[in-house]
This record gives sequence, structure tokens and C-alpha cells, in this order.
Amino acid sequence: MAESWDDLIAGLKQGSVRSLARMITAVENRASGWMEAMKRVHSDGRKAGVIGVTGPPGSGKSSLTDKITWELVQAGRSVGIIAVDPSSPYSGGALLGDRVRMRDVSILPGVFVRSMATRGALGGLTWAAHDVVKIMAAFGKDVILIETVGVGQDEIEVVKTADLVMLVCVPGQGDAIQAIKAGVMEIADLFVVNKADLDGADRVVADVEAMLDLCSNSVRARPPVLKTAACTGGGVPELVAAVQSMLELRSEDRSRRKVRAKEELVRLLSTEIARLVHEKWNQDGSMASAVEDILSSRKDPYSITQEMLAPVAAYLK
Amino acid sequence: MAESWDDLIAGLKQGSVRSLARMITAVENRASGWMEAMKRVHSDGRKAGVIGVTGPPGSGKSSLTDKITWELVQAGRSVGIIAVDPSSPYSGGALLGDRVRMRDVSILPGVFVRSMATRGALGGLTWAAHDVVKIMAAFGKDVILIETVGVGQDEIEVVKTADLVMLVCVPGQGDAIQAIKAGVMEIADLFVVNKADLDGADRVVADVEAMLDLCSNSVRARPPVLKTAACTGGGVPELVAAVQSMLELRSEDRSRRKVRAKEELVRLLSTEIARLVHEKWNQDGSMASAVEDILSSRKDPYSITQEMLAPVAAYLK
Repeated sequence: MAESWDDLIAGLKQGSVRSLARMITAVENRASGWMEAMKRVHSDGRKAGVIGVTGPPGSGKSSLTDKITWELVQAGRSVGIIAVDPSSPYSGGALLGDRVRMRDVSILPGVFVRSMATRGALGGLTWAAHDVVKIMAAFGKDVILIETVGVGQDEIEVVKTADLVMLVCVPGQGDAIQAIKAGVMEIADLFVVNKADLDGADRVVADVEAMLDLCSNSVRARPPVLKTAACTGGGVPELVAAVQSMLELRSEDRSRRKVRAKEELVRLLSTEIARLVHEKWNQDGSMASAVEDILSSRKDPYSITQEMLAPVAAYLK
Repeated sequence: MAESWDDLIAGLKQGSVRSLARMITAVENRASGWMEAMKRVHSDGRKAGVIGVTGPPGSGKSSLTDKITWELVQAGRSVGIIAVDPSSPYSGGALLGDRVRMRDVSILPGVFVRSMATRGALGGLTWAAHDVVKIMAAFGKDVILIETVGVGQDEIEVVKTADLVMLVCVPGQGDAIQAIKAGVMEIADLFVVNKADLDGADRVVADVEAMLDLCSNSVRARPPVLKTAACTGGGVPELVAAVQSMLELRSEDRSRRKVRAKEELVRLLSTEIARLVHEKWNQDGSMASAVEDILSSRKDPYSITQEMLAPVAAYLK
């Protein structure tokens, strides 16, 4: 690293956007010492309201995120945006689509936009989103919007770490029931029917309400359904007001905080174990020789796994 | 377990569908002794051609899978179908959609259909798909189709373990470029434009070809683009013929086998480590007390992770 963690954290506290960006990159890359740095960021204790924005491709999530941001900036709040992208195993990022578009809001005062790729099972970048939220909060962001490109499993995992999850749907995407899959439905605290100026918006609202009737239970509050037209900004002030009052209620919900704390811990533990183990086995050549053993049929992958994990298993007994 | 692994494996070899189903469940659940059982299944050495079928929701993947299955059964092959579903954190399965539909092909002779949920980060069910493929192969299936509901990251991870990945797209889903995300594009060995009887099919073919022009490189063979109409079965015989000749070429590709072997090993190692560690921490109460420490701000999650992993890290040094 060109700069020390001390420099980065000092820059962060002084409001340097450059330090913010570099600190995020260093934590994403799990640069040596990242955990110590995150302890300091965490102990700072600054909290931001975190809003997840998800929904099928083409539902206008980016435009809506931009309009919400604009509204928040007008009200004097500073905003961080994390755009989560399904990543490519080859290019390491999205090939085409939302990410290449310029974002008007990124030039507003107090707004910081960051794209993150969701990597494969062990990439861990997905999980780093939670760390990035904390870094942005320590920098002084009041509200952080996590926006996904689609509704893939990884994107859902990221977005559900938010204090409040907004599911955006639109008329004219064929069968709304198909597009809004189970699992996404159930993490939504708030439904937004976007492009409400299009024909069929009321039918989408009715469909969503019908699904909520079907899924409603006494455990969770019934999510409200709001209409917006992100292109014109219609309905956005009402949406932002609803979000803010929901965020205030949320911060007092201990059972939700408990679930989130456990999820975060499990995430950290899992990615760290995987990282430690693979680092060692890639370095000492045992991974390469194991692959050769499989290819030549000398050993099967199950026996190799048992052999490699025997010491870990013995320690845990 | 009601039955021993010996009974299940004996039943499997004798062609008992009931043993097949129970063995899959036991391996999915990581029932005690599952690795020993998988060693025996693996050493059997029976291989099947594995075809992944993926694409956006509504592209008709299920119907196409059914038509391909029908065609294969006519030709005397036995077929296994694994339908991969994004799972819900609450219901543990899909709420609505493809999975509730009856599948006509499931009553064909020699066809076995199994649904699997993709669980969260530690669920491991996703990764068990590879084990299920081996169990189906040992049972005697010639061809195994892995079909996903959507194109989520987890689903892609599952489908890319196939010998050959088919990406299904359709006209009329708005911007095809948006729907076919990077990462999905790049794992596709074959593109199928389904519902080719609809207007716009030729435009989708042209879009896909244009994307392939953009992404083509000398490392991978350019994937063919075929048209089908799954409802009528049009184009399906040609598709099956193409798939079979591609599968034959594939089995000789050592560099691909090497990549797959490494991926399988990493998957097995990671899920087993995570399972071992979390089993211990959940049993000995250290997870519960750690969560309380976080909620009461006595400790931060980063420090707890370091403490809990210190012995593992020390062992790996």
C-alpha cells in the first residue's frame, strides 16, 4: 500500500474523498491490516441510515436512487451510494448496462458513488459491502443507498444487510409475480411501483397487495406500497418521507439488530476462514498437487478434502 | 438416518428410485458419513453428460428442458433434471413460479426430477448440486440437465459446473443486453433464442451475435446461436444434436477438466471448513455470546473474528 492505514483513516476523518476511495479499495482487497483498520472505523461508532434498493433489471432503480439522493441532498443530508453489480469471472465487472451510464448525482455536493462487484463464492467482495457502509458512515455520510443491478442471490444477500429494503417494480415487465421472486419479496420493507405514469401501474399495485395478503403474518409489519415516477420525480418526496420515518423506528428494533449482528459475524468468520485456508494451500502447493491427483484419478476430491481438513477438524473436536 | 449408506448405495445400484431420492436428501443434509458414501459413488466412475440451462425468468427454460428431455428419452437415453431455485430465507423455497407447475416429463420412463434450493452463504446446498450430479450418474443417468430459475450469482455458480452451459433468451423482454448480464454471457457455450416464433427473434439473434463479436477471443470457441420454439418443439432436435456433439468434444478437454477439478475441490473445502467451524461455535455457545457482545458494544465484530480464528490462523502458519 502506498499510504498507511493511519494516513487513510486520518484523511477519512478530515473529509478527504480521495482517502475515502482508497480506504474502500484497500478494505475490499483485504490489504494486510484491514481488520485493525476496520476496528478503528467501527469504534468511531458513527451510524448512517442504510437503504437497500433492489428490483428486476429495467425497473428504473438507478434513476430512482438518483432522485432519492437529490431529495436528500436538498434536505441537507450527505449521501453515499453503493452500486452492486453481478461480476464477470473474466472481466471482473459488468460488461454492459447500468454501470457505464454517467450518474448525474455523483457531481452533487456531499454525494459519493461507488460500484462494487459481487464475486464468486470466495471472492468476499459481496460481503465487503458491509465494511464499505461503515467506512462511508465514518466519513460522515448520513444516508447510504445500496443499489443492485438485478435480484440475484448475491445481490439480495448484500441488500438485506440494509436497515430498510425497498423493492422496485414496474408495469409492463410481463408477469410481475414471476419477476418478483420469493426471497426478494420477503426481505422487502417497502414496495415502490415505479414508472407509475405507465399503463398498468395500478394493476402492479393490486398484484403486490394481493401477494402481501397471501404472505402477511403477524411477525412482520405489512410493507407499504408507494408509487413513483422516477423520470419526473413524482412521488419521490413522499417516498423519502416514508423511508425516513421507517428508519427511525428500525434503529430501535433489537431483535432485528440481533439477527443482523449474527449475520455480519458469520459473514466475517466464513470469508476469513476461507481466505486463510486458500492462501496457505495455494502458497504451499498442496492445492496444485491435489488437483493433479484428481485429474490422474489417484485420489477422489472427497478423500483429499478429508485429508486436508483433518488437522482443522481435530482442533475443533 | 432410517437406512444405512450401505442400503442406499445398494438400492442405487439396483435402480431403486426411492434409494436415489433418499441418498440425495442424505447427502444434501450432510448426514454423518456422507463423504465416505460419496467416495464410493465417485469411485464407481460412471460419468454422465451434464448440461446447464440458464437464462432470465420467463425465457421458457423449463419448457425447453422438458422438450430436450423428451427428445433424449425418444433416443433411448435416461435423464436426470436438477431444478435450482433461489431459496427464500423464510420459506426455504420458492413461493410462486416455476416450481409449483407440474412437470409432464417427470412421468416419462427413465426421467428423474429433483428441485434444489440455493441457500445463503453457508447453506452449502448450492454446492451439493455437484454431488447430486454424481449420485444421478452412479444411478445410471446418461444425461443430467441442471436448470436454473433465474440468473442469480448462486445459480450461475451451480450451472457453470456443467460440461456445457446453454443460455436461453427470448424476444420481448425489453433490452436483451440488459437481461443477459456479463458473467452469464461468459459462461455460455451455446446460446438458444427460444420462442423463436415471436416477433423480434431475429433481432435477439443479431444482438447476441453482436455481443459475441465484442467478446470473442482466441481462448474460447465462439458459442453457436440456435433458435427454438419450446412450445411446439421446433428446433429442439437440432439443438440436442448440437449439444451431443459438443459434449463429446468437451470430455477430452484437459484444461477444462483441470479448472473444474480445482473448483470442485475449493467448493468442498470451503463448505466443509465453514460447516465444521459453525457447528462447533453454535454448539459451544460462543456464537451466541459473541452476538451479545456486539449488541452491547462490548466488542466489535472484527475483534471477535480475530479471536475466534486465532487458533485456526496459528495452525495454518
